Amino acid sequence: MALADLQAVDRNEEGIAAVLGILKQRFGERFQTGETVRRQHAHTTTYIPHQSPDGVVFAQSSADVQEVVRCCAEHRVPIIPFGTGTSLEGHVNAPGGGISLDVNQMNTILAVNAEDLDAVVQPGVTREQLNTHLRDTGLFFPIDPGANASIGGMAATRASGTNAVRYGTMRENVLALTAVMADGREITTSKRVKKTSAGYDLTRLLVGSEGTLGIITSVTVKLYGIPQAISGGVCPFPTLEAAANAVIMTIQMGIPVARIELVNGLAVRAMNAYSGLDYPESPCLFVEFHGSDDGVKEQARMFGEIVEEFGGGPFHWATAAEDRAKLWKGRHNFAFAAFGLRPGAKQIATDVCVPISRFAECIAETERDIEETGLIAPIVGHSGDGNFHVTPLVNVEDPQEVERVEAFVDRLNLRAIAMEGTCTGEHGIGQGKMRYLGLELGATVDFMGKIKAALDPDNILNPGKILPPR
Amino acid sequence: MALADLQAVDRNEEGIAAVLGILKQRFGERFQTGETVRRQHAHTTTYIPHQSPDGVVFAQSSADVQEVVRCCAEHRVPIIPFGTGTSLEGHVNAPGGGISLDVNQMNTILAVNAEDLDAVVQPGVTREQLNTHLRDTGLFFPIDPGANASIGGMAATRASGTNAVRYGTMRENVLALTAVMADGREITTSKRVKKTSAGYDLTRLLVGSEGTLGIITSVTVKLYGIPQAISGGVCPFPTLEAAANAVIMTIQMGIPVARIELVNGLAVRAMNAYSGLDYPESPCLFVEFHGSDDGVKEQARMFGEIVEEFGGGPFHWATAAEDRAKLWKGRHNFAFAAFGLRPGAKQIATDVCVPISRFAECIAETERDIEETGLIAPIVGHSGDGNFHVTPLVNVEDPQEVERVEAFVDRLNLRAIAMEGTCTGEHGIGQGKMRYLGLELGATVDFMGKIKAALDPDNILNPGKILPPR
Repeated sequence: MALADLQAVDRNEEGIAAVLGILKQRFGERFQTGETVRRQHAHTTTYIPHQSPDGVVFAQSSADVQEVVRCCAEHRVPIIPFGTGTSLEGHVNAPGGGISLDVNQMNTILAVNAEDLDAVVQPGVTREQLNTHLRDTGLFFPIDPGANASIGGMAATRASGTNAVRYGTMRENVLALTAVMADGREITTSKRVKKTSAGYDLTRLLVGSEGTLGIITSVTVKLYGIPQAISGGVCPFPTLEAAANAVIMTIQMGIPVARIELVNGLAVRAMNAYSGLDYPESPCLFVEFHGSDDGVKEQARMFGEIVEEFGGGPFHWATAAEDRAKLWKGRHNFAFAAFGLRPGAKQIATDVCVPISRFAECIAETERDIEETGLIAPIVGHSGDGNFHVTPLVNVEDPQEVERVEAFVDRLNLRAIAMEGTCTGEHGIGQGKMRYLGLELGATVDFMGKIKAALDPDNILNPGKILPPR
Repeated sequence: MALADLQAVDRNEEGIAAVLGILKQRFGERFQTGETVRRQHAHTTTYIPHQSPDGVVFAQSSADVQEVVRCCAEHRVPIIPFGTGTSLEGHVNAPGGGISLDVNQMNTILAVNAEDLDAVVQPGVTREQLNTHLRDTGLFFPIDPGANASIGGMAATRASGTNAVRYGTMRENVLALTAVMADGREITTSKRVKKTSAGYDLTRLLVGSEGTLGIITSVTVKLYGIPQAISGGVCPFPTLEAAANAVIMTIQMGIPVARIELVNGLAVRAMNAYSGLDYPESPCLFVEFHGSDDGVKEQARMFGEIVEEFGGGPFHWATAAEDRAKLWKGRHNFAFAAFGLRPGAKQIATDVCVPISRFAECIAETERDIEETGLIAPIVGHSGDGNFHVTPLVNVEDPQEVERVEAFVDRLNLRAIAMEGTCTGEHGIGQGKMRYLGLELGATVDFMGKIKAALDPDNILNPGKILPPR
């Protein structure tokens, strides 16, 4: 099936008209149908074309969400949940129109249970908002996709980021959820406990379901004590492969590194220019160690030996807290920085993840492919997890170039899958990677479809994402 | 609904007769219908009555499993997967008869990917078998329910054990599964990667599904490097509540303890007698620290300060490896040891788990309840996770006593649920806890039922477990 067909969802004009009338009546100013607002809510940060919803509800409570879902369910109209719109695979597009459900006003931190190392938040709370709120508790929430995403959206896409190598992804860090299901009922997936064997794990079924099985209305996340000591910095390597091999050894030796980011020379150049940094414009590892004073020293010493073995160095320490903040802000802003490498171009997001033993090989083959294809395509990676992003910068007005880049992306995804890897480590399937899900998991996708049909029989929850239209 | 009704599944006599004939023909000596074998396969380690299957297939391959499932699917006959039979909630019972699918001969370790810190095993591989196999690699598989359970069974019940406080449960430690679904197709839930956002998390949906959604045919598990240093021992406390409070502080201070087991005086007495130990017969914590030489010393020092604060000590160190082995073997054999407290009695397994902030309170109220009810009921707990087991020893010939104990268990489960906890931290729902699942999660259970109906429309996969009969 061609991409355009995979993304197609029939419009139910009659139902949409009915719903628009009802929601206007019910939500007044909190329901918007102006073109600007609608376009903003189909904002996609990559080259996937916009598909605007017909209207946007600004929900303030679970009851609002339930009301919208019930109304849309009655008239069989799509509902597309919307957090900060920073997802990368067209998740917030409305291929069959319908209602965008904006949860940004559901931004209350409902509870911080410091003693239990957890917090309960509404879905519109962003990761930075939560960490600011936690400032005086000695605790933090580690998951950090580049953007200041909403925690509801992060749960929906099973997001992670630079810390996942140590703290895990949203999969490991969501203890429980509440969600409004397709029939309008709100459920609690689990009690607020560290472990449970009470029936099917609906928490983790909803985490990563991209709004297609239920609308998340609160998230209970794990928190961690801010480590006594943090150290880190940037270490250059002669080749990207050498850096990748240093990562492999770090992981295999069990060094509990908190962050170990691979950044190629081109990506360092973009960051330096955009964020006013001056790191060596060669392949680098950006690393951070968390622990006790002694523990951090020990980790740094062991890592130093590995660096030496692979011809890396010298290490640029970011000792002061503000230097570290600058370093990681630079890393988080990479997506913005990358535009500077080719002004006017758009980015195609990629997100392969392979077993760590194949990481250097996958990176090396991909580098050759970039060169042979003649692309401007920086590479950054959450390398401790075997996950990396190649971001080709594309002139979308040039169909031949788009075709060449798409062929490259295709080779990249298939390369990762052939190495027992996945086409997506953390971005999700959305519209953009739908084609690869079947190539990656085969008949398993049929069973995903059965679950979707069972929980959302009328296909109103974010239709046309993850699974091909029925 | 009464327990007996919850456990009832109608027998399909005609289908069963047909399947018995076909399987005999096909599997010969690997299909058994003798009463002894059938009874062994409905072995339950608690007081839940036996319900034997009609026959037992000894599967040797995924193809065998597929053949049995296809045959049973055609004739709508129940299939009950069987590992080591050490589950505690009647999981292997056959309330509607049918075929027990014994996977003990599927006991091949398919791959050890030392570089990726994972292994792929058939479902009949036991945890001890895997660890013996790993002996020379410097790696180990941490999850340790008391019994030497099969890894397939451990995945199916979302098992954990003493190490979960540090290494997580099967939820966190299964990277991927293969499973034969109700229509006989075998699926792979995920690629062998540390993280993925590729569609619905069927890995974690199957983990903990107790054989009701698919028959697990292989499990990819995480491995860990054996820590450089291990230390630990036993520390007595004046009261169980004091011990529980010491646990809470240990967790809240973020000491990365590898094991922290709460054992009350009665339980220590049972272990001492059964395993030839001589620990103080008062409330104790059994602890273990993993890390570098310095790290372990630091953890022990910090823990020592907490012990002092709560009036505990003196600490009995188990320094030599054989002393540690003896200590943990004693702990793992607790279930056998407990029978010694009341010869001839049966055990009722309980498994509540609460947020750590409520742990001491829940333990204290439960201790009072045990005393007021006049039970012989030792307590052991994976206290770092807020999970503990009270194990009343019951004369099942005395209906009044059974009633009294059941009322106690009822209070215990409801107490945990009222404290935002669960009735089961690691044993699963099976038959025994079905009644509490609805009390704990309400309408959520309906959605579990929808998933079950979608993936197993004829209700042939371990029917009458987790969810009430349809």
